[in-house]
Amino acid sequence: MNDWLSHRARASPDATALVSAETGEQWDYAALDADVSTLTERLAGLGLGADDHVGMLLSTRVAAVRLVHATMRLGATLVPLNTRLTSSELAGQVETADLTTVVCGAETEQLAVEAVESTDATDPVPIASLDDPQWERVASLAAADAVDVTPTEWTDDDPLVLLFTSGTTGDPKAVVLTYGNIFTSAVASAFRLGVLPGDRWLVPLSLYHMGGLAPLYRSALYGTTVVLRGEFDPGATADDIGTYDVTGVSLVPTMLKRMLDSRGTLSDSLRVVLLGGAPAPESLVTRCRDYHVPVCPTYGMTETASQISTANPEEAAEYVGTVGRPLFSTDVSVVDEDGNPVETGEIGEFVVSGPTVSPGYYDDPEATAAAFGERGLHTGDMGFRDDGGRLYVLNRKDDRIITGGENVDPGEVVDALREHPGVDDAAVVGLPDEEWGERVAALVVATDTNLTAEDVEAFCRERLAGYKLPRLVRFADELPRTASGTVERIAVREALTAPEQVAVADAEAEAEAEAEARANVSDEMRPSSDDEIDTGTESR
Amino acid sequence: MNDWLSHRARASPDATALVSAETGEQWDYAALDADVSTLTERLAGLGLGADDHVGMLLSTRVAAVRLVHATMRLGATLVPLNTRLTSSELAGQVETADLTTVVCGAETEQLAVEAVESTDATDPVPIASLDDPQWERVASLAAADAVDVTPTEWTDDDPLVLLFTSGTTGDPKAVVLTYGNIFTSAVASAFRLGVLPGDRWLVPLSLYHMGGLAPLYRSALYGTTVVLRGEFDPGATADDIGTYDVTGVSLVPTMLKRMLDSRGTLSDSLRVVLLGGAPAPESLVTRCRDYHVPVCPTYGMTETASQISTANPEEAAEYVGTVGRPLFSTDVSVVDEDGNPVETGEIGEFVVSGPTVSPGYYDDPEATAAAFGERGLHTGDMGFRDDGGRLYVLNRKDDRIITGGENVDPGEVVDALREHPGVDDAAVVGLPDEEWGERVAALVVATDTNLTAEDVEAFCRERLAGYKLPRLVRFADELPRTASGTVERIAVREALTAPEQVAVADAEAEAEAEAEARANVSDEMRPSSDDEIDTGTESR
Repeated sequence: MNDWLSHRARASPDATALVSAETGEQWDYAALDADVSTLTERLAGLGLGADDHVGMLLSTRVAAVRLVHATMRLGATLVPLNTRLTSSELAGQVETADLTTVVCGAETEQLAVEAVESTDATDPVPIASLDDPQWERVASLAAADAVDVTPTEWTDDDPLVLLFTSGTTGDPKAVVLTYGNIFTSAVASAFRLGVLPGDRWLVPLSLYHMGGLAPLYRSALYGTTVVLRGEFDPGATADDIGTYDVTGVSLVPTMLKRMLDSRGTLSDSLRVVLLGGAPAPESLVTRCRDYHVPVCPTYGMTETASQISTANPEEAAEYVGTVGRPLFSTDVSVVDEDGNPVETGEIGEFVVSGPTVSPGYYDDPEATAAAFGERGLHTGDMGFRDDGGRLYVLNRKDDRIITGGENVDPGEVVDALREHPGVDDAAVVGLPDEEWGERVAALVVATDTNLTAEDVEAFCRERLAGYKLPRLVRFADELPRTASGTVERIAVREALTAPEQVAVADAEAEAEAEAEARANVSDEMRPSSDDEIDTGTESR
Repeated sequence: MNDWLSHRARASPDATALVSAETGEQWDYAALDADVSTLTERLAGLGLGADDHVGMLLSTRVAAVRLVHATMRLGATLVPLNTRLTSSELAGQVETADLTTVVCGAETEQLAVEAVESTDATDPVPIASLDDPQWERVASLAAADAVDVTPTEWTDDDPLVLLFTSGTTGDPKAVVLTYGNIFTSAVASAFRLGVLPGDRWLVPLSLYHMGGLAPLYRSALYGTTVVLRGEFDPGATADDIGTYDVTGVSLVPTMLKRMLDSRGTLSDSLRVVLLGGAPAPESLVTRCRDYHVPVCPTYGMTETASQISTANPEEAAEYVGTVGRPLFSTDVSVVDEDGNPVETGEIGEFVVSGPTVSPGYYDDPEATAAAFGERGLHTGDMGFRDDGGRLYVLNRKDDRIITGGENVDPGEVVDALREHPGVDDAAVVGLPDEEWGERVAALVVATDTNLTAEDVEAFCRERLAGYKLPRLVRFADELPRTASGTVERIAVREALTAPEQVAVADAEAEAEAEAEARANVSDEMRPSSDDEIDTGTESR
């Protein structure tokens, strides 16, 4: 098979492929295909081809959709990069994924330059800006002798995407997603949610998470329409649904709650609200039921190319807290600590197998061996299966924090805190949060008694993406530890949630989040708390 | 992947899998799965397993649906057999397909016995009747030492089905359809027609044609419902649609015309009427448009696991005669006699490639080499592509006759005619027929001047399935031939359609067909002309 867009352009050239929600501009599949051909030629002209790893550092915009398809047409592997990371975080990813080039836009060029300059490479990775007609920054790429844009033949095991996920070790890991993973995921999704030729899927999520990226591939396979909402705004996004007769949308709970807060309900054109990235609060599901919003709580991971299981609206209403049954062809075992299946209704770790499961982490055999066992992928998610085969996700086996749909590894935040000369030690946990699902909180042992929560936050802000910043910082004389020296996370939580001794930064952070929640997010580069909702459904 | 039903039973155990239109009985996926497990164990107990070729000689009934899935679960290859063939025709298929066993029912047991006895084998193929609790006829099958029904792992290239198609040589050819062929066809069909979790597909077609068989596999993949109508009756079948909230149905033009004649229009629960097996008359498509019947004319073949291209109702109404654009991932070239692509709008032969295309004919490298070329499958269908990429099928390159959706090879009828001691030579063509699309007609050179058309028809009836019988027989002193000796088919047509010299059998056959068209078909074994509509959409 060639890239999906080229097949689709032949199968339904006059179907609408893409709508920009901001401008109302539309492209049918023939037009999108032509634009992608032009871009593919530009990329091929730079010498890029089948074995390249193409970094995509772009905001959610039409050009990014073209790049996704052009990379596939070239036969290259797409590596979406999180525009909210700091340049040093990005530098690590550029190196980890062995990027051949970084494609950016005017809005991300500065960040791309800083990121590439922060790498250890003596010969820095070239940068190409889609908004620079001269491709000036890619002068270092050798121009190809002959531009060959014969569509590539893809087979099941070819790596289509490397997608970063935050793991438990703090080091970024790039999940290898093959052609077969993403194809079978799209097929299984269609067989669960349904698909009609006139479907229109709204994408208000970042394309560097599976929740935003998957609908682009799915729509090209299905021949349906993507409605792209570049910048999330609760009211505008809710209005898009009616304006563009949207039938499906991927959202994280935070977004859906704010859209409902803003508009009361959503247009009845909707057939599917795919709700993932974080557990759906019961109150939100009930609200959807009452207002006839067809919510489909889903459980998914980057490592499974998105959905593992998805409930339909009736199931969601009847079986509180369920994420439904596994999708067609996906098998989920619930196992105990020794890896043996537990009984129905008993809690264990979810282990996933099937054709959507990634072959592993790129160039990281150790992490791959740790997560991908004989029975499948060890998700680190704890939960149970009811006697109807429905899954319920309870908590993480590890300490990963999920805030507004983004994964935060506590270890990475602890490392940043420890770099502060006035900090001796720290523990980081996620605390329940009505708006974000969880929020990052830190218990700090300071050597400098004058250190304030504000100092700590400012220090972290230089080192960590906005969504990773501790929103609550408290100080302690020492960390609660077990006899063997392990930090007692339950005691840390208690110290952070005890009513007395509220730190100054806590109240301030709350007020800041509140203020920003009311404002529109107009500056995508701003590492604000509001940015945290521009994230990935289905990804963890 | 295991057999699709076992995945489906886990993904949606409580969705309705199957409804018997005759009795109203229903099975959800968990119940169908359990029944199929029982049958799989019975078959495994007979020693059948992964390398076997299981012949299915059954009417369209629930037990046949179970057998389709049980064969897949065993890892064996299913070989559906046409219950309308004569025992000697079937004997040839039993041998051609290297059958390991023939599974029949009470309604086909006699035919199965006669067929197996007509083979040349000294050790006849065992027969198992699903209606015989003792499996008496399979005593000759060695019982397995241990019954192993661990679901088989299927991969793309494994042969899932061998399906007979009438070719141009008269010898039956068994098309190899792989797991990958049928899977990708189901996926591409969903992406063209759409699929919703609540879909119900009515199957009034024989399961020994792709048009009847494909929906069984598709529904198990999709998790949707099959409504099985065992015996076609125009009124009852039309009523089924309303009774069971049917959303899709596969029909051949003859059936649809008679359903509309019987009931005026069809229930508005329908989203798709997939109309194939023969060209859709313009008058029928117009009638569908006027009565809001969502007709989707399709072009397909057994060799492509069903649909190659399908038009949606709007296209069908706007572009008269089109069968739409090729499905996703299927490529169609229109080529001249040298195999070079012709210009848009020019007539040529359709050559099809893509993942739904069969790897070839079973154990027949010669026929495979003749049909499957470098560019793909040479369909033998002539037509053109318009500038919007839509296909139009005009006629056969060879002389194959399609009557009521069934393929008839003229050579096979000529061979039967020549066996008559009073016949010197004969030519057989298809004549246009309002009811059946085409009907078989024969121009006969007799040595016995007393030979009548009735004699000829009675003689053929012993040798050929009912739908292959010449419905018009005329006599001539010699066949019109070119200088090189080739029969001039145009002149044969003229001789058969000239108003004078109407043969006696002609009028009688017309009257008979007319009478039977009014009667319900209650006896499936009767080789009547009415039987001819119990056939395969999408197949040729």
